[in-house]
Amino acid sequence: MTEVVAPDRLIADLPEGAVVTDADILAAYRQDRAQDPDAGTPLALVRPTSTAEVQTVVRWCNEHRVPLTTRGAGTSLSGGSTAVDGAIMLSTEKMRSIDIDTATRTAVVQPGLLNAEVKAAAAEKGLWYPPDPSSFEICSIGGNVATNAGGLCCVKYGMTADYVLGLEAVLADGRVVRLGGKQIKDSAGLSLTKLFVGSEGLLGVITEVTLRLLPPQASASTVVGSFASVHQASEAVLAVTARIRPAMLEFMDRASINAVEDMLKMGLDRDAGALLVAQSDAPGPAGAAEVEIIQRAFEENGATEVFATDDPQEGEAFTAARRAAIPAVERKGSLLLEDVGVPLPQLPPLIDGVAAISERRDVTIAVIAHAGDGNTHPLIVFDPADADEHDRAQLAFGEIMDLAISLGGTITGEHGVGRLKKAWLPDQVGPDVMDLTATIKNALDPHGLLNPGVLL
Amino acid sequence: MTEVVAPDRLIADLPEGAVVTDADILAAYRQDRAQDPDAGTPLALVRPTSTAEVQTVVRWCNEHRVPLTTRGAGTSLSGGSTAVDGAIMLSTEKMRSIDIDTATRTAVVQPGLLNAEVKAAAAEKGLWYPPDPSSFEICSIGGNVATNAGGLCCVKYGMTADYVLGLEAVLADGRVVRLGGKQIKDSAGLSLTKLFVGSEGLLGVITEVTLRLLPPQASASTVVGSFASVHQASEAVLAVTARIRPAMLEFMDRASINAVEDMLKMGLDRDAGALLVAQSDAPGPAGAAEVEIIQRAFEENGATEVFATDDPQEGEAFTAARRAAIPAVERKGSLLLEDVGVPLPQLPPLIDGVAAISERRDVTIAVIAHAGDGNTHPLIVFDPADADEHDRAQLAFGEIMDLAISLGGTITGEHGVGRLKKAWLPDQVGPDVMDLTATIKNALDPHGLLNPGVLL
Repeated sequence: MTEVVAPDRLIADLPEGAVVTDADILAAYRQDRAQDPDAGTPLALVRPTSTAEVQTVVRWCNEHRVPLTTRGAGTSLSGGSTAVDGAIMLSTEKMRSIDIDTATRTAVVQPGLLNAEVKAAAAEKGLWYPPDPSSFEICSIGGNVATNAGGLCCVKYGMTADYVLGLEAVLADGRVVRLGGKQIKDSAGLSLTKLFVGSEGLLGVITEVTLRLLPPQASASTVVGSFASVHQASEAVLAVTARIRPAMLEFMDRASINAVEDMLKMGLDRDAGALLVAQSDAPGPAGAAEVEIIQRAFEENGATEVFATDDPQEGEAFTAARRAAIPAVERKGSLLLEDVGVPLPQLPPLIDGVAAISERRDVTIAVIAHAGDGNTHPLIVFDPADADEHDRAQLAFGEIMDLAISLGGTITGEHGVGRLKKAWLPDQVGPDVMDLTATIKNALDPHGLLNPGVLL
Repeated sequence: MTEVVAPDRLIADLPEGAVVTDADILAAYRQDRAQDPDAGTPLALVRPTSTAEVQTVVRWCNEHRVPLTTRGAGTSLSGGSTAVDGAIMLSTEKMRSIDIDTATRTAVVQPGLLNAEVKAAAAEKGLWYPPDPSSFEICSIGGNVATNAGGLCCVKYGMTADYVLGLEAVLADGRVVRLGGKQIKDSAGLSLTKLFVGSEGLLGVITEVTLRLLPPQASASTVVGSFASVHQASEAVLAVTARIRPAMLEFMDRASINAVEDMLKMGLDRDAGALLVAQSDAPGPAGAAEVEIIQRAFEENGATEVFATDDPQEGEAFTAARRAAIPAVERKGSLLLEDVGVPLPQLPPLIDGVAAISERRDVTIAVIAHAGDGNTHPLIVFDPADADEHDRAQLAFGEIMDLAISLGGTITGEHGVGRLKKAWLPDQVGPDVMDLTATIKNALDPHGLLNPGVLL
């Protein structure tokens, strides 16, 4: 941008209070949870309540060639909603309507509603919205769709993309498109709905999503296993997934166990090298059979302790412990949060390799993982006041992505590329896929106004 | 095309026999199962065996601006692989390799392998590839991916798109891209894998797919219900899906029951107004509970006869009867085959509306449906020698799509738009989505060489 455009017309065209230019408020919208130190300062914050208001914002941006960052709840761990100097920050936080249709088992939702609120609204009508990022209580459904977010139940129930039947988006030129709908099957035209899921704000502003809901999940049984070594635990994961599809299969290493125990004091085994938390929600004897398979897989791979329960309350305590790992580790220092994934058999070498990087770079790396689908979150801990440690953490961050790529994996399983990982994307997908990506981006947003700095 | 290009260079650059210009052989490749009378005659048929050979073909086409139609097994019911005058017909029939990886539970498959062959190869390794179009014994996996094909088990297990983890494609300019991979979760970059699924050959030639496999399906119980009226049967469908997610829920009306009985002579009730065939594959008591729910839903909606069996053989006979419906009805005359879908609660008005169209246009319309997901196949029967009846059938064909659109549904649930339905696509999705579709097509294939005449 060569000159600053005053948003007077935008302020005039939107309801009073929708456009905010107060510096203190803007400051709170500069960063997301990735805490990018290079975050810019937006020209203005806009909080529309309707698709029509989003159109007004996008049209104004298009007319004045002002870039626009879309932000849900600001929980991006990869810098997907970090502010850009002189750009509009469009927050969807006031777009919070939901309409549950029990006949079609769908929810039509505005993007600002939190994942937990979607789940709760569905549950009130006896239905279930499965995707469950660990941050489900604080992340928005729009952000979930924009990043194709995952969670703990993905191993059996799939990603956000698997639940998006349709959506509405405002394109870069201000036009509104409605893609897909309430029907479960639709092969009419290109798969544009799926293209917009995971597009990280690059192709349009998502203003509404139609989500598929399921009948309620059956009550789950939980199996917890302690292992002396990380390696044994990752072998146990393979032994489980070779036989069944558990409803959850989560991994914590010693550093994360201890961080959680420091915070929650729930009696976790601080000496364990790794902990696995698995669930089966298969009903009746089928569930009992799955629990037995999981127990045996744990025992045959050297578990020092195995605990099984069909009490949902007890099970939820362990799930909550796993969910608490990121905030618990965050209390030990600043975090660089990885999201690397590999084909399942590569899980042991990935976890071994992360340990080697931790040793070589002399930084603490706590590892948690949605182990059942090969998606890991190495959490690199560093003291932001220690410049040398910060540099070593940065090196480790890159080396872990290099490692995942070398194992045939991905730099991001569920958080998106954002700003923090974009330097590694070409290494994973290659120049032709980068070019294809840019071709589509340029075709849909020729002036590059939507979420600049992200992904490309 | 203004002048005819001789494929000499193409013949020289490919192995002997890969390029065919024999008129008799070309004639056999003009039409697919849609039997479009306006099919053209290709310049040449090319049957490559490798990605590199596909590249040679696409590069030659790009250099000489010769269009290219990609064809799998030629079973398209919407004209997706119909020949174009002067174009290259690229058949993938000789690209038949498959590699099953039990550790990652994936299959890496060339596009020419048949769906049934993928299923069989997976089963040999104790795994299951769910998608099951009725034509699974004769349709290619490449065609399945290009149309996002469905089938009978979709109601519980999803579409082809849900099983495509990665793919390789040759772009219009001859470059090869590899999208996705064997990992279950991957949020790195735009969802290009999903964009190519269902793209009907418009964006590239798919040369390899990586498919997700599941543990084997549990043995299924089958419930068959006879109903006096179509309306009662469609109400029974809603009563089932309101409570459970069956593994199959298929519908046949009287005309299709009788056509199948004429062909198979298996003792179906010729006087029934409609037949439902449902399955549960939930294990043990959960399965028994589902069977009971289905039986009760049938009885409470006026079933005249309900038959349940947990003998897989007996169940398969009814599934086979349902699968035989299209060839059975085809023996009565030429077919115009619909694939319209609606949100489930609109199923009864859709089926009623089709009956009204049948009466108004005085043509036989047999209706079968993947009723559990609202996807119906009205089969319009006509005598091709009767010009007036042919015209009335054509009118009915359009009116059924208009009806589906008016009910908030889709003109195609699983067959793709192809040539036969493209006139109705704008009515369903609107001008802005058509424009968005064309924008992406033009960005990826600026000379419009890939599958011209299809979809756009």
